[in-house]
Amino acid sequence: MADSKPLFSLDGDPMAAEALLRDVFGIVVDEVIRKGTSASEKVCEWKEPEELKRLLDLELRSQGEAPEQILARCRAVIRYSVKTCHPHFFNQLFSGLDPHSLAGRVITESLNTSQYTYEIAPVFVLMEEEVLKKLRALVGWSSGDGVFCPGGSISNMYAMNLARYQRYPDCKQRGLRGLPPLALFTSKECHYSIKKGAAFLGLGTDSVWIVKTDERGKMMPEDLERQISLAEAENLLRRCHGSQASYLFQQDKFYDVALDTGDKVVQCGRRVDCLKLWLMWKAQGGQGLERRVDRAFALAWYLVEELKKREGFELVIEPEFVNVCFWFVPPSLRGKQENPDYSERLAKVAPVLKERMVKEGSMMIGYQPHGTRGNFFRMVVANPALTRADMDFLLNELERLGQDL
Amino acid sequence: MADSKPLFSLDGDPMAAEALLRDVFGIVVDEVIRKGTSASEKVCEWKEPEELKRLLDLELRSQGEAPEQILARCRAVIRYSVKTCHPHFFNQLFSGLDPHSLAGRVITESLNTSQYTYEIAPVFVLMEEEVLKKLRALVGWSSGDGVFCPGGSISNMYAMNLARYQRYPDCKQRGLRGLPPLALFTSKECHYSIKKGAAFLGLGTDSVWIVKTDERGKMMPEDLERQISLAEAENLLRRCHGSQASYLFQQDKFYDVALDTGDKVVQCGRRVDCLKLWLMWKAQGGQGLERRVDRAFALAWYLVEELKKREGFELVIEPEFVNVCFWFVPPSLRGKQENPDYSERLAKVAPVLKERMVKEGSMMIGYQPHGTRGNFFRMVVANPALTRADMDFLLNELERLGQDL
Ligand SMILES: Cc1ncc(COP(=O)(O)O)c(C=O)c1O
Ligand SMILES: Cc1ncc(COP(=O)(O)O)c(C=O)c1O
Repeated sequence: MADSKPLFSLDGDPMAAEALLRDVFGIVVDEVIRKGTSASEKVCEWKEPEELKRLLDLELRSQGEAPEQILARCRAVIRYSVKTCHPHFFNQLFSGLDPHSLAGRVITESLNTSQYTYEIAPVFVLMEEEVLKKLRALVGWSSGDGVFCPGGSISNMYAMNLARYQRYPDCKQRGLRGLPPLALFTSKECHYSIKKGAAFLGLGTDSVWIVKTDERGKMMPEDLERQISLAEAENLLRRCHGSQASYLFQQDKFYDVALDTGDKVVQCGRRVDCLKLWLMWKAQGGQGLERRVDRAFALAWYLVEELKKREGFELVIEPEFVNVCFWFVPPSLRGKQENPDYSERLAKVAPVLKERMVKEGSMMIGYQPHGTRGNFFRMVVANPALTRADMDFLLNELERLGQDL
Repeated sequence: MADSKPLFSLDGDPMAAEALLRDVFGIVVDEVIRKGTSASEKVCEWKEPEELKRLLDLELRSQGEAPEQILARCRAVIRYSVKTCHPHFFNQLFSGLDPHSLAGRVITESLNTSQYTYEIAPVFVLMEEEVLKKLRALVGWSSGDGVFCPGGSISNMYAMNLARYQRYPDCKQRGLRGLPPLALFTSKECHYSIKKGAAFLGLGTDSVWIVKTDERGKMMPEDLERQISLAEAENLLRRCHGSQASYLFQQDKFYDVALDTGDKVVQCGRRVDCLKLWLMWKAQGGQGLERRVDRAFALAWYLVEELKKREGFELVIEPEFVNVCFWFVPPSLRGKQENPDYSERLAKVAPVLKERMVKEGSMMIGYQPHGTRGNFFRMVVANPALTRADMDFLLNELERLGQDL
């Protein structure tokens, strides 16, 4: 590209900046909020990585680009991205588009502040207090503290660090070498972030003691006791994050510095997460949220019943929550449970169906193996916009995609 | 509130959801993007915490609220929040509103995906590669890896963890107790996240060895060598995050699983950060970004020169970057440097001016003490929309606010 072209900087041109953002908001409304949530559109438009690279022209150059070109790029980014808000996106624990959460996030992103002090986030420091209080009440706690974390893995690390500090406050200063060896007990079915956390926090994955689970995946208290005695037999069982940054946490402020909550976290700056939840909660009310949970359960039961009525589906386990794990048994495998290669052949079905659905863009649903069980589909009913028709679609679509197998 | 009122859920009403989001985008454009960046508006509308709580009605109830009320709440949240995009917001290392970054963020928030696999984030997995490659090139590396982190503190912890793993890969499994004691060398002027990280990673803050700095705050190599020998004298000197979650990182996928980058990080899910930077870079080009840096330096020099011309300002140190640290010396203290209580009285000036500017909402600028130096102002020229007029405003405003002191 010739470097003699004009620079397309919007710096110092507030009208142009505003116009660009209005256009982007318009694109987001049309392409994500309307089309992305429409059952008649594709969930994804699959491209091989090399082709996608070519289509997107990702290279960053020394020459800037004009607003029209930037808008075209925004459209392309949206076009080739997966629509997690689509009613046939069942691939993750999350799905759907909550308008109030998104509204909250757009506001916090445009205000672009950090959660650390009352000075810089007066509304959000107070709001976080209220949201955390409500969340604690939901689990039956009338006092306590809390913090929004960037995800579940980091939340688990906080939990481990707090537990360690609670028992051995010295650890903060003297480190793990100053302590007796520690043991971390967790369920066989725990998320892998427990091991990541054990490594990150310096405990090492060898410190993790795995407690057996029953046939429904629940921790067995007898085995927990056994693991504890084993750890004891190995002689293993025997105030937390603050550091005070003077430039943020001056004590000579003209308001109550207890409201500068930044020193509670292992981060310093922290994006504002509470408005997203607060705005949704305000709009839905506790009742509305309760109704969502009830609906999700009802739909999950509906799915299970429909699945049982059909020939080609087999539950992995009777569900008790909103996740439903099942195999699709293709015509050629039906009634062949006794064949020695049945499980092996069944395990190959889900990857094939996944490839077909993604390449057509008709649906997305996750699969995984578990222990001796071969690949099965893992459906999570989370999106409040789902209806029975979407459950029927899910089953019909798997039958259609797998009819020749 | 009576619980007999209708529920205001937008679930299953895509038209209403779209209308709400259109309205919120409109409010954001008017109240943040236009008014928030206008020099004639306030930077903040200060309220005492109790009063603000009353004004916001933060309580979350069982009854939901109608869209009009939700919109009113959005307006209130914005009204009482600090406008970090305002040209007279100088309070943090960040400021200003970058339209392309915000556009990128609004798109990633509405697509609401996670960065872990190509399946779920095809565009962003490829885009992150490109942005990280460019960032590495800026520091002169032709190969390597990288990851966007939720902030600087967590980035520092990653760095410490990688260093530990590089030298002692065993640590991941066996933990710190299996290793010789480790030492962490850092500058006396380092960010407090180094100590937080030492505590979190199980090293303990006692493992942190502080290296002296010169009069300009730079680490002294001789003292680093001295600290290393001290640590050695105390006999202290003698593959990383993966855990493989089967449900995400299946190896039987129909595309190159090297593109599923989620297992590189201590998190599992991770929000998409790269689009924000990529879109800005595409729009500005390398040239545009370079021009921004040049402008920021030029403005910082301008501020320093103007400050030297005026009677009531004193530099803490001759700046060499875009941060300018200075005292405002009020009329009653000028020429009184020899008085024994001069420093003590000078240190009280910044908090008073800060309170005044915040209560008027005219400007925000941070202050802090450092070592034996009492509170001084810490100005960072970061916002590309700033002009010389804003620098003049800063100095005039401090003079106006402090004329009676
Ligand atoms: C039980 C559990 N813990 C932790 C995590 C990790 O959360 P994140 O992906 O936000 O790090 C997950 C994610 O699915 C989870 O299901
Ligand atoms: C040098 C340095 N390191 C780390 C941090 C912490 O970054 P964060 O606030 O994103 O955790 C900062 C923040 O200002 C910093 O200046």
